[in-house]
Amino acid sequence: IKRSNLSSTAVELGEHRHYMHKEIFEQPQSVIDTLEGRITQESVLTSAFGHQAETLFASISQIQIIACGTSYHAGMVAKYWFEDIIGLPCFIEVASEYRYRNPVLLSDTLFVTISQSGETADTLAALQQIKQKRDVKNLNCPTLSICNVPESSLTRESDLVFLTHAGPEVGVASTKAFTTQLVALSLLLTTLGKVQGRLTQKRERIIVQGLQKLPGLIRNALNHEDEIKEIAKRFADKSSALFLGRGTMYPIAMEAALKLKEISYIHAEAYPAGELKHGPLALIDEYMPVIAIAPHDDLLEKLKSNLQEVRARGGQMIVFEDENANTDSEGGMKVVKATTNVGRITAPITFNIPLQLLAYHVALIKGTDVDQPRNLAKSVTVE
Amino acid sequence: IKRSNLSSTAVELGEHRHYMHKEIFEQPQSVIDTLEGRITQESVLTSAFGHQAETLFASISQIQIIACGTSYHAGMVAKYWFEDIIGLPCFIEVASEYRYRNPVLLSDTLFVTISQSGETADTLAALQQIKQKRDVKNLNCPTLSICNVPESSLTRESDLVFLTHAGPEVGVASTKAFTTQLVALSLLLTTLGKVQGRLTQKRERIIVQGLQKLPGLIRNALNHEDEIKEIAKRFADKSSALFLGRGTMYPIAMEAALKLKEISYIHAEAYPAGELKHGPLALIDEYMPVIAIAPHDDLLEKLKSNLQEVRARGGQMIVFEDENANTDSEGGMKVVKATTNVGRITAPITFNIPLQLLAYHVALIKGTDVDQPRNLAKSVTVE
Repeated sequence: IKRSNLSSTAVELGEHRHYMHKEIFEQPQSVIDTLEGRITQESVLTSAFGHQAETLFASISQIQIIACGTSYHAGMVAKYWFEDIIGLPCFIEVASEYRYRNPVLLSDTLFVTISQSGETADTLAALQQIKQKRDVKNLNCPTLSICNVPESSLTRESDLVFLTHAGPEVGVASTKAFTTQLVALSLLLTTLGKVQGRLTQKRERIIVQGLQKLPGLIRNALNHEDEIKEIAKRFADKSSALFLGRGTMYPIAMEAALKLKEISYIHAEAYPAGELKHGPLALIDEYMPVIAIAPHDDLLEKLKSNLQEVRARGGQMIVFEDENANTDSEGGMKVVKATTNVGRITAPITFNIPLQLLAYHVALIKGTDVDQPRNLAKSVTVE
Repeated sequence: IKRSNLSSTAVELGEHRHYMHKEIFEQPQSVIDTLEGRITQESVLTSAFGHQAETLFASISQIQIIACGTSYHAGMVAKYWFEDIIGLPCFIEVASEYRYRNPVLLSDTLFVTISQSGETADTLAALQQIKQKRDVKNLNCPTLSICNVPESSLTRESDLVFLTHAGPEVGVASTKAFTTQLVALSLLLTTLGKVQGRLTQKRERIIVQGLQKLPGLIRNALNHEDEIKEIAKRFADKSSALFLGRGTMYPIAMEAALKLKEISYIHAEAYPAGELKHGPLALIDEYMPVIAIAPHDDLLEKLKSNLQEVRARGGQMIVFEDENANTDSEGGMKVVKATTNVGRITAPITFNIPLQLLAYHVALIKGTDVDQPRNLAKSVTVE
């Protein structure tokens, strides 16, 4: 009996040592499965959000996203997208904060909750509170949940549901669920933009074509594994790290820092790059590697000038950038050409991939229990 | 000539070893000076914000705060206040992010910029961008700056100005400027609430009476210095720390973590307490002290259950709470009764004081250059 269990696990894991590794490599397929039946060659199907979606989406004038942990980071990326690409005001808050303060509920707000399990206690409680307030005050506040588990509590409590088709996620540190949440949010962006006349057909087509390229972009990013393995060795003796980004790369930096925290127990923290000079720069010395996610040269130029004096003190910098950016590795700076030809939607999703691999390979070096990191549970179903 | 310089510094520093220490102890007076001429026994003078304030304040339906570093933390406290106490939607963003994304500008928004120097480059650029957009689109978006330096760039660029009267701040790590920014924001809250009919006379009186008690509350908090000195010894061999809070105590936790970072070079990070289980809990072992700011027993109870297994691993917890809360120091947990009888406005301002002292005394033990921490400048006037 024991042997049969083991071999079943082995089959499930296949060539992979850990579920996390397996799930990282499943991401091209998870994206395909999440897009399946939701897009055509050129457009997003509004019906992907249910038959009420068109009416409800037409009625709203802002979005409030509520989530925890990794799902919160997905929502933060979406906030940048919504305001930048379709000009729809979008607010985002951690569920445990939202539910315990006394927030203002505005009518015509779409409330979006995001949770892999659909059972996250604080997110569920926030949703229930919103529904109660909305009903008392008779406000137009439709609710949408983005979950990976059908028939979960959040999906039952929401007016609209979008299921990510990431498949079961076993590793405690979320990877493919996050990626498919971002895909879901990009479809929401496109659908809302279309329903509200905020997106031209041409731009819709560009977004959809970008999404179709995404599985290939992720596969290319996964091909950097050997390079990432080498870089991971630099973290063997480190106990802290800083991740920096601007715009949508700031939440990607947050997600990268969280992954490293969760499975390698390195105290990684993310900052919007512009805040570096307002305090965290004091931390940086040869023991504190700085990881910058800098698809654009301009962020990198600003960072390099910020870090000039730090590099004189031996500070190490690792930069993830686009193949087309023209930076080379030089003294104290290692450049990883992580991806190429990414757009505003595909960029944060693609840049996240090598950072997942980085966390994974650092954890292997540190010898932690990758799939079951200490103190953590897969779903936080109690407060 | 040298001798005369030294003695002049000595006079200025008085009994204090560092400007930061002097400035921490000046806070009762800074609060008195900032309130002077702005309040009566029972109410806030709307004229404190200039003669146009009443008209402009009546015209707005939401607030957008933009700031960097410590000033951003002051704005975050205010966000909780505005929505909870007067039901006015309030949004806050780091200036370097706001200026480089493509944010939606809504008419009838009061834009509040906060900066000690009034010269913070990103905040100034964000303000200029807002004014340009508003003029092009002909939107009603009045601007208010809260600064400590008269005739600074931000004050010159803003429709309304509120000067904090903290006096010159020399230490790079901001202390009294932050406290007076919170006082300024509490006056803005009260004025807006009054002008818009969102605050009863009774509640205005309660807030004003709380502010009048504030210098005394701060003095009481400063009296805990010897106790804080003892606690600081626990950080002598630490390189990381986590600060936790909920509600307005979350930005106070962020500010406490930033202070410790800036002057002791300890990698301190703040989390909203409810996010602990979504990742950072994995970090906690005997090398990672956890500092909770928990005026209310309910947060503490939740934390204690979260940290139960961590304490089994030797995790150390330091709790700052109200004298009236009924927790005692016990194995693995040190309780500091930091203050008493604080209200919703005075609580975050008061709880911040012992945390400033903690950062200061840890820095003394670490032997850093307290007033001139490495890599940092007092005002970030370039990007």
